[in-house]
Amino acid sequence: MSESIASAMPAFRDFKNHVVLIGAGTIGLAFAALHLQFLSNPNQLTIHDIRPDLQEYVCENLPRYLNPLQHDLVSEIRLSTSASTLRNALSKATIVQEQGPENTAFKKSIWVRIEQHVSPTALLWSSTSGIVASIQSEDMKDKCRLLVLHPFNPPHIMPLLELVPSPCTNQKYIDQTLEFWRHRGREPVVIRKETIGFVANRLAFALLREAVHLVNEGVVSAREVDNIVTTSMGPRWAIAGPFKSYHAGGGSGGLAWWFKNIGSTVQQCWDDMGRVNFGDGDWEERISNEAAVAYGQIDTEERDRKTKAVLRAVVDSEP
Amino acid sequence: MSESIASAMPAFRDFKNHVVLIGAGTIGLAFAALHLQFLSNPNQLTIHDIRPDLQEYVCENLPRYLNPLQHDLVSEIRLSTSASTLRNALSKATIVQEQGPENTAFKKSIWVRIEQHVSPTALLWSSTSGIVASIQSEDMKDKCRLLVLHPFNPPHIMPLLELVPSPCTNQKYIDQTLEFWRHRGREPVVIRKETIGFVANRLAFALLREAVHLVNEGVVSAREVDNIVTTSMGPRWAIAGPFKSYHAGGGSGGLAWWFKNIGSTVQQCWDDMGRVNFGDGDWEERISNEAAVAYGQIDTEERDRKTKAVLRAVVDSEP
Repeated sequence: MSESIASAMPAFRDFKNHVVLIGAGTIGLAFAALHLQFLSNPNQLTIHDIRPDLQEYVCENLPRYLNPLQHDLVSEIRLSTSASTLRNALSKATIVQEQGPENTAFKKSIWVRIEQHVSPTALLWSSTSGIVASIQSEDMKDKCRLLVLHPFNPPHIMPLLELVPSPCTNQKYIDQTLEFWRHRGREPVVIRKETIGFVANRLAFALLREAVHLVNEGVVSAREVDNIVTTSMGPRWAIAGPFKSYHAGGGSGGLAWWFKNIGSTVQQCWDDMGRVNFGDGDWEERISNEAAVAYGQIDTEERDRKTKAVLRAVVDSEP
Repeated sequence: MSESIASAMPAFRDFKNHVVLIGAGTIGLAFAALHLQFLSNPNQLTIHDIRPDLQEYVCENLPRYLNPLQHDLVSEIRLSTSASTLRNALSKATIVQEQGPENTAFKKSIWVRIEQHVSPTALLWSSTSGIVASIQSEDMKDKCRLLVLHPFNPPHIMPLLELVPSPCTNQKYIDQTLEFWRHRGREPVVIRKETIGFVANRLAFALLREAVHLVNEGVVSAREVDNIVTTSMGPRWAIAGPFKSYHAGGGSGGLAWWFKNIGSTVQQCWDDMGRVNFGDGDWEERISNEAAVAYGQIDTEERDRKTKAVLRAVVDSEP
């Protein structure tokens, strides 16, 4: 079990669910690792992917997402590479979670196939980063079953899960999904409209745009932006989000005081913000080169170890 | 000594500097606490403020920023409330740091007075959040001495210090200031242009604007924005800033790969971002009310304890 989960909640064993993951990319493997924390038996998990080397691939790559004590579970996961093995897995599934190619035609057709074979009570989730449920479900008989479950990478570590129903998704599936993930120490948040990019990425990309602008203007380098963020709003926002932080900044007057007293400064910054775009000049190349020189190849194991330490620190420092 | 500093660097004693802090608001007291971590003797620190109850005020409020073992240092700090005591303190100062009212006339006149009495080698810093050094120094004889030292609140905990010189600030003062703070385990970053709001606040305000937009559009509530940020980009950005994170997200292709493959999604989000302004509708009131109901009065001691735990976790999880 990952340490962050272990410190966040009591362990429990899920004897009930049968999970079928469709697509074994990095997001698929990370979700496999996450589901394995809770399933009573690894044979309650099926990973389906049409790659012919699925077995070697999973055996080689999935252990990187797991605690060493769990490595021997990998061989007991069910693997599926054909239509018939998928059909068989779907017939017993209580949860089907898709993270295949980001391709509308693929997603529309896979849900039609899934729907033919899966129990009418199974939960159907797509971990797309952008193709909304109302489009993916267009050709389904029951369009109200599907919802998007968008993680923040890597999902076996980061608590956030954005639940993005289509306008017609049945509330009971939303509620069951919320309960499922809350019970597993995750932070599922329902996004109430099918917005481009959902919410977390939009917020991060808003900051990124201003960061690119300030680098373009010669105010700071890309590496200095990173240093600024990790030593100020990063650690602050690990504890309290922007509204809560500014509400605290307003003292006894709260956010109302802060808006009233700092608002004109904020507005000046908003008015001065850059509207840089992809394809404007050569910034993509310049900033990529700067990052390559500054960071080389990033060690994501180190990143993940530190991220777990930060998440644990937030929980452990509760009074 | 604060735990975050203690774990970040070896303690040392500064026998040399005499620091005069002008202005004893929350930023002034937090800087007093930070300087006290390092000064060999608390009488190397003078706090000047014209409030008549300065002694009771400092004795009552400064301990909240200090480790209990340091509480008995407070009575040994030099306090100054008059022009003559300030003059006396300035005559021995090696560092003068101003965090008085955010008022251009005040700042311009105080630097003229300070310059009359201070050694020509003393470092002069303003911890303004927005009045740039080139304006504050307009009436000084030597306009090249001043630089802005903008903290991220609270400065006794948050590592970032934005150093914002005016175009004429002498490089030697910038270098001495960098060395001073790096030696004390802080992260000083030189901002190369006198930009509105400097950098950290501009980045945070860019995210805030999109957060306000998404709340206004009914996509999420303010509290949900906070939950999203604390469970995704907050902990991530405590470890690696946005460019480094996306460079990691690009795998072996780095940020160049990420820009090429995710750029069109980012651009779609940029194109769809809101351009909300203060005074547009009633969002300030609605969001303030939501924060007041959700959070009540925030316990900043809890926030500070958790922030220290997060900063320590980043350092302690180094290999």
